[in-house]
Amino acid sequence: MDDRLNHPDRLFPADPRSRQIARELYASIRDLPIVSPHGHCDPRWFAGDAGFRDPAALLVQPDHYVLRMLVSQGVPLESLVSIPEAETGDVRQRRIWRLFAERYHLFLGTPTRMWLDHGFEHLFGLTEPPGASNADSVFDRISDMLRRPSFRPRALFDQFRVEFLATTEDALDPLSEHSAIAGSGWPGRVVTTYRPDSVTDPDHEGFIRNLEILSGITGCDVSSWDGYLEAHRRRREVFRKHGAVATDHGTPLPVTADLSDSECHSLWERVRTGRADDRDAEWFRGQMLTEMARMSVEDGMTMQIHPGSWRNHSRDVMARFGRDMGFDIPQRADFVGGLQPLLNAVGHEPGLRIIVFTLDEATLGRELAPLAGAYPALFLGPAWWFFDSPDGMRRFREMTTETAGFWNTAGFNDDARSLASIPARHDMARRVDCAFLAERVADHRLSEIDAHAIARTLTVELPKRAYGLE
Amino acid sequence: MDDRLNHPDRLFPADPRSRQIARELYASIRDLPIVSPHGHCDPRWFAGDAGFRDPAALLVQPDHYVLRMLVSQGVPLESLVSIPEAETGDVRQRRIWRLFAERYHLFLGTPTRMWLDHGFEHLFGLTEPPGASNADSVFDRISDMLRRPSFRPRALFDQFRVEFLATTEDALDPLSEHSAIAGSGWPGRVVTTYRPDSVTDPDHEGFIRNLEILSGITGCDVSSWDGYLEAHRRRREVFRKHGAVATDHGTPLPVTADLSDSECHSLWERVRTGRADDRDAEWFRGQMLTEMARMSVEDGMTMQIHPGSWRNHSRDVMARFGRDMGFDIPQRADFVGGLQPLLNAVGHEPGLRIIVFTLDEATLGRELAPLAGAYPALFLGPAWWFFDSPDGMRRFREMTTETAGFWNTAGFNDDARSLASIPARHDMARRVDCAFLAERVADHRLSEIDAHAIARTLTVELPKRAYGLE
Amino acid sequence: MDDRLNHPDRLFPADPRSRQIARELYASIRDLPIVSPHGHCDPRWFAGDAGFRDPAALLVQPDHYVLRMLVSQGVPLESLVSIPEAETGDVRQRRIWRLFAERYHLFLGTPTRMWLDHGFEHLFGLTEPPGASNADSVFDRISDMLRRPSFRPRALFDQFRVEFLATTEDALDPLSEHSAIAGSGWPGRVVTTYRPDSVTDPDHEGFIRNLEILSGITGCDVSSWDGYLEAHRRRREVFRKHGAVATDHGTPLPVTADLSDSECHSLWERVRTGRADDRDAEWFRGQMLTEMARMSVEDGMTMQIHPGSWRNHSRDVMARFGRDMGFDIPQRADFVGGLQPLLNAVGHEPGLRIIVFTLDEATLGRELAPLAGAYPALFLGPAWWFFDSPDGMRRFREMTTETAGFWNTAGFNDDARSLASIPARHDMARRVDCAFLAERVADHRLSEIDAHAIARTLTVELPKRAYGLE
Repeated sequence: MDDRLNHPDRLFPADPRSRQIARELYASIRDLPIVSPHGHCDPRWFAGDAGFRDPAALLVQPDHYVLRMLVSQGVPLESLVSIPEAETGDVRQRRIWRLFAERYHLFLGTPTRMWLDHGFEHLFGLTEPPGASNADSVFDRISDMLRRPSFRPRALFDQFRVEFLATTEDALDPLSEHSAIAGSGWPGRVVTTYRPDSVTDPDHEGFIRNLEILSGITGCDVSSWDGYLEAHRRRREVFRKHGAVATDHGTPLPVTADLSDSECHSLWERVRTGRADDRDAEWFRGQMLTEMARMSVEDGMTMQIHPGSWRNHSRDVMARFGRDMGFDIPQRADFVGGLQPLLNAVGHEPGLRIIVFTLDEATLGRELAPLAGAYPALFLGPAWWFFDSPDGMRRFREMTTETAGFWNTAGFNDDARSLASIPARHDMARRVDCAFLAERVADHRLSEIDAHAIARTLTVELPKRAYGLE
Repeated sequence: MDDRLNHPDRLFPADPRSRQIARELYASIRDLPIVSPHGHCDPRWFAGDAGFRDPAALLVQPDHYVLRMLVSQGVPLESLVSIPEAETGDVRQRRIWRLFAERYHLFLGTPTRMWLDHGFEHLFGLTEPPGASNADSVFDRISDMLRRPSFRPRALFDQFRVEFLATTEDALDPLSEHSAIAGSGWPGRVVTTYRPDSVTDPDHEGFIRNLEILSGITGCDVSSWDGYLEAHRRRREVFRKHGAVATDHGTPLPVTADLSDSECHSLWERVRTGRADDRDAEWFRGQMLTEMARMSVEDGMTMQIHPGSWRNHSRDVMARFGRDMGFDIPQRADFVGGLQPLLNAVGHEPGLRIIVFTLDEATLGRELAPLAGAYPALFLGPAWWFFDSPDGMRRFREMTTETAGFWNTAGFNDDARSLASIPARHDMARRVDCAFLAERVADHRLSEIDAHAIARTLTVELPKRAYGLE
Repeated sequence: MDDRLNHPDRLFPADPRSRQIARELYASIRDLPIVSPHGHCDPRWFAGDAGFRDPAALLVQPDHYVLRMLVSQGVPLESLVSIPEAETGDVRQRRIWRLFAERYHLFLGTPTRMWLDHGFEHLFGLTEPPGASNADSVFDRISDMLRRPSFRPRALFDQFRVEFLATTEDALDPLSEHSAIAGSGWPGRVVTTYRPDSVTDPDHEGFIRNLEILSGITGCDVSSWDGYLEAHRRRREVFRKHGAVATDHGTPLPVTADLSDSECHSLWERVRTGRADDRDAEWFRGQMLTEMARMSVEDGMTMQIHPGSWRNHSRDVMARFGRDMGFDIPQRADFVGGLQPLLNAVGHEPGLRIIVFTLDEATLGRELAPLAGAYPALFLGPAWWFFDSPDGMRRFREMTTETAGFWNTAGFNDDARSLASIPARHDMARRVDCAFLAERVADHRLSEIDAHAIARTLTVELPKRAYGLE
């Protein structure tokens, strides 16, 4: 039994012939460059190129997958993120690392564990996983390595062979980090993405204040509906000048609207003056998705819609620790009714690309594959968040391919918040796709030649096409 | 690597022993005659027995699966179905065929591709798929073959060994094509099915006018509720005289009702005079399902309910091209509450057979298998439409068998609109069932003897029982 | 072909290497004792230790899975449960057994069949299944064996190596059977579980009368909200004195509430006086779930929530035969919104254990695994009822493990109403877990060492931890 941290055949089918096919498919795409058009890396990493500090700061504290699992098994969140005065930074970080290492078995069977194991071996040269007995020595080893130049962000970016990386910034962000990257002479292609939720969602904390800022930085009179839309156009243009090829939109549910011009004016009047009720807020978010799609027809930016998460489900965690602490929970979604206004408005526009993601797997076969397999503007984003996992990706292909084929999908997104996890995530996606294809070669639904072509298409061509990178 | 168009082992499990079991199961049922109790073949084909014209007219233009995929990837629908004056028919048909052939890779991984490949090899003797380089020669070859007598509809019917084929006609159809078939002396058994949606759905375009026609052809005074029901009884009798063994009902959602007699009278008064609101229309459709079930108790016709499709989702496509152009999208359904009125009215009636289909796979394990595994009148129709596919059929069995067993299912329906695809579809269903059974023999959930008996039961006995053909 | 009734490799993967891994995993846990913390055995069996009468009384009549399948295929329910005067008991029981035996093929592919086959071979020594030809001899053989002392309930309990068994009793139950067991000197550990639905659900038949009984047996003035809660506290204490470690709650939907104290008082006033409307009833059931959770924080009892069944879907069957006759049907559920009030109230309480079950598999990956993988108080109950089956258990692991891992699950519950089925059910669960683990060893997602540790954890440690039995 070969119990390496990362077996070379991991995630391949057990049947020997299918496994051999998967190996060959994987060998042909393993070393292709990484295209990462959607994620949440911090552009400061690449602007400043400072090193990471220690393994707890790198791998535990910023990762809501890790935090939520530890919390679910009784580790208080305050022991992982708060800063007790009695502790110095080093003592605290080592203590947090130990809390994690002693509970590393909790992650068995999860993609988080596989991403971490990938980095432990390939980045840090570990031969066995962290645990109670080696927590300190692993902490020291990784901390040491993180001080080396070869572990700085730009060096890792190159080592990982990233060809294109998009971060995500708020519509109001000054984009100074991206300016710094562009002005630094470093050739890595790191661009921004236009995320306007803070000025399109009336329920966003600070919405009214954000409108003032939007007005200030664009010079548009956002008190009128037309001025407000124009402000978006100008911000989109600024983002495009910083390399952006896409916009990104998070909404609680996939609801869109296509109201008349007079309805838009009166709705905007209520929204901008803080008089929108819940129904107004939902209509407004929905109308803005359609407006953003219309602007994408004008300016060519790819539009990404990420709906279906009930954010900050635990009020206590939100109140004490804020957003993104692992308490965002998927909820049931209706894309068929919800997207109809938008699709009727622009679903047949030549050249428009709208990529939709879901957290409700029941909608994959029932709603999204049938929609993407008909409307030319619609593409399926990859398995997302909780489903960015071996079984989740396999179900994604099983639920969508027979109706929408491969070409109505958008390739892989890593959605990473951690630089270290990017190669692991792309590697996992490539392996799962190869396993899926190998099984269909083995039962003669695909020829080997076709499977090889599809593997390459999924890895490189579809993401480039979906984000206009060709 | 054997890269034949249709490998003899396709769709069988990869594990060698499981595959061998599947082969043996399949060999025992492969050549059984085809029973096709639900589909949309045109009876004119068998009445007139005229040949098909060319491969675009045979395989592309009438197939909404093909149209939707090409449209989803940017081919304008008007280039596939409209008739520019500048083109003669031949030029146009060849151009359409080329549009399709150049994009045949888009269908990789879909059942459409497998159905087409089956016909290309077994009907037309192709050894490689159509593509950009051979589009014209394939067009010519198939066009030539279609002119031969052996490619006329009746010859194909015989060649395919179809034992029973039901088409579907509107309640107002004069059934003259079926009369012509019956009077022609040709022994093929092609019968009609009673589809009354145009006179049971108040939202159907032309509903009020259709009621006048219904009154005219039955001699019933449909201005009274009782007269309207009597008109249905008489039309059902006419259909039965043309061989019909079943009725078929499409509704947006699986909603049924069982109103009091006085409620029915007043509802009918609103409906027949065009004063029904949306809620009335839904109640009426639901009440009519229950009335149709009661008539099935009287006359023995099998009742089929096909709910859950949001028809004509793209208003633009509907306005420019009409129905059935690939823009019908499944939606979430509730069978547990929706069917309760009907099941409480007639669910325990001895001899009654109601077959229910779903486009919401989440309902298979949660709702339909538990209902069909309890109510004696209820049977599960096979995986339908987007799920009439290898993975869809497998999920159907995985989600229903453990709760409802095999005997509460109705066997396979091909639902075909294309005569050429019928053998391919039945072959796919037989292979997938054999693979499912073989896996359960391999892990000792079923004995081989039982699996052989079940394979035959699924292929012949269950469809015959479900449609009263024994 | 080895067509034994129960093959030693049943439910293991077909791939030879995966199967070998599964065999080794299973061998290491096969003989571990049975921990059965949730089920519906009758405590009278162990109090009185009387033998069972005949195979129809043991295996057919009390099993709603068996009844529903026979009814679904046309056997009238009255022929299985009613007592025609013209028949003596023996004639009737033999006739019922024959009805079952002649239709035993209907159960092929269902877990019911596997549970029965397990008992037929391992308890009764059959070498072939019952059928039309051997129905009488099997009836005689099993009837004879049931008269032996070794087939009495306590002897079976010991033979099955049950270490802990919980039954479920109504909150008003005098628990005299459990007193008798405790006083008998028999060392078997059989305890009760607190099930208060009859005094927490305003829609329960007899609810108002039940409140009077509750008041009488606790001495609490339940006309006040505080007195009513105190009565629950006292009954919980009585149940704990009879060994109870858990409470159990069935609600139509997973709806909880956390109302203010004044809202609770006025709601209770309406509820206890029979003036609650449907909305009040739902709020009240939801509020009581939160109150029960708060009491679990106080007294340490594990809380079980079993929502999502539409009870007694057939009004005719309910009217003629009563509850639990196979006509309870799952329905769609929303745990994300529904559990939020409860989880916000107590979801972070240290030491609290709430186990949630679902009949809506779509919620496993979308809702329950994300919730249990974040809230420390929440654990996932195993695949339940219709999904207590090989494919159901596999889907449970596939849909939950990647998000919640193994340690946020509660191990297996047999939920058995039949003593004879307990070892078969635990054996099935152990086999399916080993198959799941073996597949993940074979594709290198888990090491063999980790898989062995997890197999033991799932079988013994997690159920003991979930129910506080450590």
